[in-house]
Amino acid sequence: MSNVMQKEWLGFNEGRWSNGSINVRDFILKNYTEYDGDASFLTPPTEATKKLWAMVTELSEKERENGGVLDMDTKIISTITSHGPGYLDKNLEKIVGFQTDKPFKRSLQPFGGIRMAQNACAQNGYEVDPSVVEIFTKYRKTHNQGVFDAYTPEMRLARKSAIITGLPDAYGRGRIIGDYRRVALYGIDKLIEDKKHQIDTSLVRMTSKNIRLREELAEQVRALEELRELGEIYGFDISRPAANAQEAVQWLYFGYLAAVKEQNGAAMSLGRTSTFLDIYIERDLRNGVITEQQAQEYIDHFIMKLRLVKFARTPEYNELFSGDPTWVTESIGGVSVDGRPMVTKNSFRYIHTLDNLGSAPEPNMTVLWSTKLPRNFKEYCAEMSIKSSSIQYENDDLMRVTHGDDYAIACCVSSMRIGKEMQFFGARANLAKCLLYAINGGIDERLKIQVGPRYRMVEGDYLDYDDVMEKYDAMMEWLAGLYVNTLNVIHYMHDKYCYEKLQMALHDRDVKRYFATGIAGLSVVADSLSAIKYAKVKCIRDEDGIVVDYEVEGDFPKYGNNDDRVDSIAVNLVRSFMDKIRKHHTYRDGVPTMSILTITSNVVYGKKTGNTPDGRKMGVPLAPGANPMHGRDTHGAAASLSSVAKLPFRHAQDGISNTFSIIPDALGKDNAVFMGDIDLDMLRENDNE
Amino acid sequence: MSNVMQKEWLGFNEGRWSNGSINVRDFILKNYTEYDGDASFLTPPTEATKKLWAMVTELSEKERENGGVLDMDTKIISTITSHGPGYLDKNLEKIVGFQTDKPFKRSLQPFGGIRMAQNACAQNGYEVDPSVVEIFTKYRKTHNQGVFDAYTPEMRLARKSAIITGLPDAYGRGRIIGDYRRVALYGIDKLIEDKKHQIDTSLVRMTSKNIRLREELAEQVRALEELRELGEIYGFDISRPAANAQEAVQWLYFGYLAAVKEQNGAAMSLGRTSTFLDIYIERDLRNGVITEQQAQEYIDHFIMKLRLVKFARTPEYNELFSGDPTWVTESIGGVSVDGRPMVTKNSFRYIHTLDNLGSAPEPNMTVLWSTKLPRNFKEYCAEMSIKSSSIQYENDDLMRVTHGDDYAIACCVSSMRIGKEMQFFGARANLAKCLLYAINGGIDERLKIQVGPRYRMVEGDYLDYDDVMEKYDAMMEWLAGLYVNTLNVIHYMHDKYCYEKLQMALHDRDVKRYFATGIAGLSVVADSLSAIKYAKVKCIRDEDGIVVDYEVEGDFPKYGNNDDRVDSIAVNLVRSFMDKIRKHHTYRDGVPTMSILTITSNVVYGKKTGNTPDGRKMGVPLAPGANPMHGRDTHGAAASLSSVAKLPFRHAQDGISNTFSIIPDALGKDNAVFMGDIDLDMLRENDNE
Repeated sequence: MSNVMQKEWLGFNEGRWSNGSINVRDFILKNYTEYDGDASFLTPPTEATKKLWAMVTELSEKERENGGVLDMDTKIISTITSHGPGYLDKNLEKIVGFQTDKPFKRSLQPFGGIRMAQNACAQNGYEVDPSVVEIFTKYRKTHNQGVFDAYTPEMRLARKSAIITGLPDAYGRGRIIGDYRRVALYGIDKLIEDKKHQIDTSLVRMTSKNIRLREELAEQVRALEELRELGEIYGFDISRPAANAQEAVQWLYFGYLAAVKEQNGAAMSLGRTSTFLDIYIERDLRNGVITEQQAQEYIDHFIMKLRLVKFARTPEYNELFSGDPTWVTESIGGVSVDGRPMVTKNSFRYIHTLDNLGSAPEPNMTVLWSTKLPRNFKEYCAEMSIKSSSIQYENDDLMRVTHGDDYAIACCVSSMRIGKEMQFFGARANLAKCLLYAINGGIDERLKIQVGPRYRMVEGDYLDYDDVMEKYDAMMEWLAGLYVNTLNVIHYMHDKYCYEKLQMALHDRDVKRYFATGIAGLSVVADSLSAIKYAKVKCIRDEDGIVVDYEVEGDFPKYGNNDDRVDSIAVNLVRSFMDKIRKHHTYRDGVPTMSILTITSNVVYGKKTGNTPDGRKMGVPLAPGANPMHGRDTHGAAASLSSVAKLPFRHAQDGISNTFSIIPDALGKDNAVFMGDIDLDMLRENDNE
Repeated sequence: MSNVMQKEWLGFNEGRWSNGSINVRDFILKNYTEYDGDASFLTPPTEATKKLWAMVTELSEKERENGGVLDMDTKIISTITSHGPGYLDKNLEKIVGFQTDKPFKRSLQPFGGIRMAQNACAQNGYEVDPSVVEIFTKYRKTHNQGVFDAYTPEMRLARKSAIITGLPDAYGRGRIIGDYRRVALYGIDKLIEDKKHQIDTSLVRMTSKNIRLREELAEQVRALEELRELGEIYGFDISRPAANAQEAVQWLYFGYLAAVKEQNGAAMSLGRTSTFLDIYIERDLRNGVITEQQAQEYIDHFIMKLRLVKFARTPEYNELFSGDPTWVTESIGGVSVDGRPMVTKNSFRYIHTLDNLGSAPEPNMTVLWSTKLPRNFKEYCAEMSIKSSSIQYENDDLMRVTHGDDYAIACCVSSMRIGKEMQFFGARANLAKCLLYAINGGIDERLKIQVGPRYRMVEGDYLDYDDVMEKYDAMMEWLAGLYVNTLNVIHYMHDKYCYEKLQMALHDRDVKRYFATGIAGLSVVADSLSAIKYAKVKCIRDEDGIVVDYEVEGDFPKYGNNDDRVDSIAVNLVRSFMDKIRKHHTYRDGVPTMSILTITSNVVYGKKTGNTPDGRKMGVPLAPGANPMHGRDTHGAAASLSSVAKLPFRHAQDGISNTFSIIPDALGKDNAVFMGDIDLDMLRENDNE
């Protein structure tokens, strides 16, 4: 890496970022322009934007009419360089690039699993070309086949009974955020140079671990070379750094585009790009090269592209996720570790796309909320939240402690330092179902077959708290072990057959790996255990002696009312299960974490979970994430939020989600800021738990 | 595994082999019929055999005329089930099956390396179909690419300079012997049942090691299913055990055929099949179902098939191996651990094919020689050796101690228990070149570039023994480490991209893995060090100060004359290098071994090795294996053999080869047995070294 300032960097403040190392954070902190003004500088969409968006709207309409999919690749296997250029209208687009050679055409991504790809096509009336099926059956093994080769019968059964669910064993695992900003700041050639240096300084004692790393780095170099070629396909030379704002957006987007051409993970998140790009925009504005309207146009067109990221999915997938989400999460705002809000004009511009293009769930705009954010930005967020219902908030004050100020959110709540940390994504364990297994000695209450270990069932007509807790603890011990081992298989095989070479090329060499686990059914279990403890719960057995229903006699405290009697059960549950997870070997020494975040899949999980001792009936959705069960939080919003806020972040470091709907009036006459603060402050208190 | 005797086993003595476990050795020992008679029972070729062999001869002729290759697959990727049936003449062939759909057509095997496959085709005027090249470039990574992704620059350089040579990094590694007899004895269904039991009892703690094993076992099951399909392709139901001699030969051959359809390793050896098959033949003869002539015909047709195993090779490959060997090594004879000679009539029949079909280097008939072999068999071997020059001898008395009585030889000297042990094949280190590196401080004497570490060069006009030895020891230390690490890369990648699923399916689950290394140039180094010690060796330097030649003043003892002054140098060298090898981490905890066996490649190695201090000139071939340098063993055959026999087997457990040509008269008036005994007895003395 040369130590001279590149000509493309003219006007930027130098720093470690420009002295030989890849250091985007340093670049940002040395160069970004804080903005504490209001939203009045924002501009409406340009004519080009409006025309393009009208085209998108029309195509979206057609796609809906067509049953959800407009066009699919059935022959071209998606790789970074598999397609020629694709446009909506080349003359109007300021930021270009689609996953295939035209918008709304879904690409064929069989590396995760050929059957998934075939099903996705078949469900939409397409058929994967037989030659492709042959390649991915006879010659090129997929992640999916690898996983099923190594699964134990117990794992298959746990998957079938849905005590472990949402396992990424048939497509890309996602939850890895490439540092796409590096493409813009350094250009591909420097990144390749850096990777080669990493190879040159890698261990030469050839253990399997070191060999794997060396091979991965070689793959990463190839991915960067392909990314450079992707630029060429669209007529850009991205071997050099981006020289202006438009190029910076374009270069960065090429990085992301390459990732979604290569991988179809459930969450292909973007990172934390707005303040980074603002530096380029500020320089161009300062130099009189562009106007605010042009700046907004770049962002509008960029966001438009992110909204058009599409994957070929199966109906089961869409059912699990209640739609067809891509989780293109962009993290906005936050505060630097030296206390400066990282809000820039571009933070506004991103959110302003919800006006210019209308609201949309993607990209998943996530504000890294802090009490220290400028008031004007807070007010704008509140205003846009009310208007669009399309902004997600996460507690920066909480996450900054462990992750610093250059982390981002993958999917909905998983935080990681960009380019330095990644996550092995991990589905979730259904703790509600686990409770039923504890009661029934491992027999599944729906399938009526032995899935868990043949432990003793509960006896007698009424459930005894101590007895159930002892049994539950043992059953969770089993579940945690099975769960981690299942994930070990998945991540081993994903690395082997579906390695994210482009995304990892935009990481440092020595990344920290989180080994993410997740739980579902927290509030159902808390309430069930509370019912057993504080009321009387009678067992109703079927002809085979399996407890299939419960009668609750009397009342009991319910999670979501700031009542420690039950909230403490939830807290202990989180800690206890996480501790059990910690006992097991994790692939690549991943650091185990846990999330409580079943935002959409809670519906499917509920369908697969029998009657529970809290009185919930078979099939009724579990509460999403860490939410109280619907309607049981009867002591008001603050009490409900307080219960959630007690959950210990250090035992659920992959994130805790709380879906919270509220009518605007409840927030006071003027704005939404007050409410947000209470929520997040409360959460923060638990940081030292 | 059921415990009842299969109907196909009627007439066999029961044992552990028939009581639920896979145990071919037990079957053999409980059932084989010793034969100490002479060769007079043997029958000449049948008319069918003669016709078929005439066809083979004609095709061979055409192949030679055609420049070495008659036909090549360029589109069909070779797998176990890739081709329809192929015949010479279906009505005449008693044993059927070719690698492709016709004889002499070489199959396309790109899993080891697509470039090797392309080169092999190109050199013979064929072109691999572009769609195949695309698959194995874009979608299906090969062993070769994996290896080169992980190689260090030093490894590439050592490969280029040829201080490490013959690395199996561009095609199959070979040296794995499937227990093909299991197919005949048990049939595929039982083998699959056994493999599934192995999976069921494999560890469920999902470390990478355990995941790998589970996946490999799943692959093995698939391979067995494909093997069953291969039988069907030829119209046989090999799901059940073989019911008679013809089926036994055919079933066994299908196992081997599947292996050579899947793998193109440099040595695809057969195992130890003659006495096993004799049991079936004896039963059929006993039952009057077949005649001796028919028995011989099965064997003749089987051997004919083995002679027609062909791979697509490059000219470089053929240069290295002085031709196009396949090393279909069959181990014949030997003695059981309870002292019974394992010679049967079928041992004679195999060797008799050298009469019935004429001599041929393949299959590589290897007699496991023991002083305890029946005299009649020894005499027949001697007679046929003299007649055909096509028999290899190895010391059973020596190898039985470590390997028992059901081992076989892979390639030329590598011994392993069949189905229980395998070898990671390992090329060789050129110790002669290493000596020159020691003298020149790691600079290659031919390429004139730094390859080894920048150690101090020798100084002054004359070489000093202690100085050179110190430098040589350090340089060997470097070479051993680099060598083992290079092999680690190769074997990791071969398992990853070119796993021998069929061959390993015919192994037990928990195999012992040998990590084979090899050395070349032993006698050159011994003589060079002797010259330095006992004569005066003057250095001749080029303009850059690199020692490029030597003048030897005075005489010195030479290896090969039973002179301990120099023989001890050779002995110490073997022990010393092996000890250095032992210091390093080996892939999959392979047990390191070493061989001294450059039977053919010594010519190429000599070409790449500069002038040496023993007076040998640049380019002159190294002596093969452990041989003395040609013409320097001036004290007669016994003295020459004595020198070789001093080499310590336990430091060269993968085998020591000595190429020994002798005129028949030298062996005495009557036979060759006497000589053979001396040779092997002498070798055995070193067993306890």
